[in-house]
Amino acid sequence: MTKSLRLGIAGLGTVGAGVIKIVQQNAALLSARSGVSVEVTAVCAQSRTKNRGVDLSNYAWEDDPVTLAKRDDVDVYVELMGGEDGPAKASVEAALGAGKHVVTANKALLAHHGHALASAAETAKVSLRFEAAVAGGIPVIKALTEGLAGNKITRIMGVMNGTCNYILTRMEHSGLPYDQIFEEANKLGFLEADPNLDVGGIDAAHKLVLLSSIAYGTQVDFGAAQLQGIGEISIDDITAAKDMGYRIKLLGLSQMTDHGLEQTMQPCLVPYNSPLGQLEGGTNMVVIEGDNVGQIVLRGAGAGEGPTASAVMGDVMDIARGINIPTFGIPAAQLTSAPAAQSTTPSAYYIRTSLRDAPGVLANIARALGDASISIDRLRQQNHEGDSAPVLIVTHPTEPANVDKALKAIATNKDTTSDPIALKIVEV
Amino acid sequence: MTKSLRLGIAGLGTVGAGVIKIVQQNAALLSARSGVSVEVTAVCAQSRTKNRGVDLSNYAWEDDPVTLAKRDDVDVYVELMGGEDGPAKASVEAALGAGKHVVTANKALLAHHGHALASAAETAKVSLRFEAAVAGGIPVIKALTEGLAGNKITRIMGVMNGTCNYILTRMEHSGLPYDQIFEEANKLGFLEADPNLDVGGIDAAHKLVLLSSIAYGTQVDFGAAQLQGIGEISIDDITAAKDMGYRIKLLGLSQMTDHGLEQTMQPCLVPYNSPLGQLEGGTNMVVIEGDNVGQIVLRGAGAGEGPTASAVMGDVMDIARGINIPTFGIPAAQLTSAPAAQSTTPSAYYIRTSLRDAPGVLANIARALGDASISIDRLRQQNHEGDSAPVLIVTHPTEPANVDKALKAIATNKDTTSDPIALKIVEV
Repeated sequence: MTKSLRLGIAGLGTVGAGVIKIVQQNAALLSARSGVSVEVTAVCAQSRTKNRGVDLSNYAWEDDPVTLAKRDDVDVYVELMGGEDGPAKASVEAALGAGKHVVTANKALLAHHGHALASAAETAKVSLRFEAAVAGGIPVIKALTEGLAGNKITRIMGVMNGTCNYILTRMEHSGLPYDQIFEEANKLGFLEADPNLDVGGIDAAHKLVLLSSIAYGTQVDFGAAQLQGIGEISIDDITAAKDMGYRIKLLGLSQMTDHGLEQTMQPCLVPYNSPLGQLEGGTNMVVIEGDNVGQIVLRGAGAGEGPTASAVMGDVMDIARGINIPTFGIPAAQLTSAPAAQSTTPSAYYIRTSLRDAPGVLANIARALGDASISIDRLRQQNHEGDSAPVLIVTHPTEPANVDKALKAIATNKDTTSDPIALKIVEV
Repeated sequence: MTKSLRLGIAGLGTVGAGVIKIVQQNAALLSARSGVSVEVTAVCAQSRTKNRGVDLSNYAWEDDPVTLAKRDDVDVYVELMGGEDGPAKASVEAALGAGKHVVTANKALLAHHGHALASAAETAKVSLRFEAAVAGGIPVIKALTEGLAGNKITRIMGVMNGTCNYILTRMEHSGLPYDQIFEEANKLGFLEADPNLDVGGIDAAHKLVLLSSIAYGTQVDFGAAQLQGIGEISIDDITAAKDMGYRIKLLGLSQMTDHGLEQTMQPCLVPYNSPLGQLEGGTNMVVIEGDNVGQIVLRGAGAGEGPTASAVMGDVMDIARGINIPTFGIPAAQLTSAPAAQSTTPSAYYIRTSLRDAPGVLANIARALGDASISIDRLRQQNHEGDSAPVLIVTHPTEPANVDKALKAIATNKDTTSDPIALKIVEV
């Protein structure tokens, strides 16, 4: 008799429904590949009556995810509800406590409680896996944890929030301002209930800190990531970037330095024709650099029913095949606590501000940059809008601290009419 | 006391030296990640005295790989000699027979004997892994076998021979003809001892058939792949393709159809700005499409010491972590034997020939195309060279059989002065 692996699924949104479809439609494949019959035994969601396009009649129903997680006929608890605390956390803890494997797509949960949950999984000698939490269908957790396990990882970069990428590319193609495209994305259902999770860079940073933990063997530390959202990006920025051969992307960057771990999630200019620059809409990309492998680029759909369910099933199949690797690649007790480091790596920057139309104003700004040890590569004053004019500056490579200093000086200048913003230029 | 995993390495070329460097330099990382001390105990190569830039003094030396493979102090036999038969095959068989795990970078060996060797590994309950055999440092075997295990794979495409890609991109950038760049690549040591392995598409097809086996659960069948090398590509083709917004790549394509398994490795035109079109030099790219995940694109260095050694170590680390998955994803006995199918999928084609300068000649060629049910999208007659003129044709989508028919008619036409070639146009 074939062994079976029994799933209990909490959360029946698009991803949950997608997982059930794979289990039902690809049953023979899953069984051939794992030697195990992968089955769903019980499910749980907010509404029992909602039509989800999948047949749930053979599965037990639970109203409470904690009860589901502890059921005797569940081997793997699949948490697809989301949320960093509440039922998601309680049920995952309950599952691990009851000796069940856990597969989750919940980046917020792991970014905040990953270390404790990984420890609990190890104590229970079960797997806690989260491929679906990072970059949708791209098997990046697997690539980083296993495929590249021979490497000292030196840097990770990624565009990992499809909604932000949708907004930025739509602004470019339509010429419409941020607020209007934001509303459009909202109407299309692309935004989280709290849109700041997306446009504030929080969701993408959740993913970045999870990758950092695996890459550098460090404890997940969401608070250490420096965040900057896309809300300040104007259509002028997008046009100016394009004119210079760049595109603006919400780019995550993580690297271990002599001073500690740098983790930034911020809008950056990347070359228009680079793999990162060419990303359209909801496509995600992760770039991993290792001491031996050089640069590996992974690209795919960052969200959606099929891709995310594919990632969930990748984890389920690993468990079916008897694979059990610590959640972050090494045992939780060995994960170190790296100090958070401010970036000191010099980069070129794009700076935008607006200045009153008066004699000597531009000279003052140029002086502010000079005082911050920044030399100017290009400067362009646009047509006046009323009595002020947008000014766009590209600097020669300079340290981030210098840019902060210059921005403060520009912001407090009496002739500055809009808060300056600075975007790093990343040549990848 | 920490457990150890002891490697015996046969073949100390760049990859073998690279593996030893990783074991020596990243020892602490490897141990933390696997819970096992990964060590080299014995090595074997043709010359004992050659300086390879690594310290071999702590390792036992064997002159014979078969003896190395069977040593009591070897847990994993790492075969990095190459060659589809001879010592590579004999030693891998010996290792499996002696109950040793095997990690190899040898695509030729597996493309020809993969099924038998996978069976032998299963009988011995050991791993036979080959990540380094396909696409260098890209963890594509792992992505396909494990990360995407929830998917029915629908198509695989790939640029997987760095030497061919080097030649084609160098021709474009230099404007120099094939023969000259071929010689340049030869001097740089980029070509195999038998260059036809590279430029004939054989090496890349070895890789493609291995991916097919995993993707579709079929027995590796190298003979079923249709090959066309890059030797006929002229600088005119490259220029014409570029003018039309395309680039020529040696592209592998594998898909399961109702008629059987299509596997082709041939020069194709791909959009210049597509991810495949943008590949330069030795970079490889594999595109995997699955019923749920959609399209995943993986990109990285296709060869070289570090990348290939990284892939070897990925397999070694899997073994150190206790992972044992059948070589081609499902047990060898369950791999099916799919009939080889000729492609019937309609595509647009680029056709080049040369015609004598005489009245009615072009009409004859146009008629030959019409007789083969091919309609012409674009046709361009270039400047005469002597008494004949190159003619470049782009067809509307048509079945490959029609193209074969038209090529025969053109080739036997009395006014044709050079054998026609046809390249598929793939919109990816």
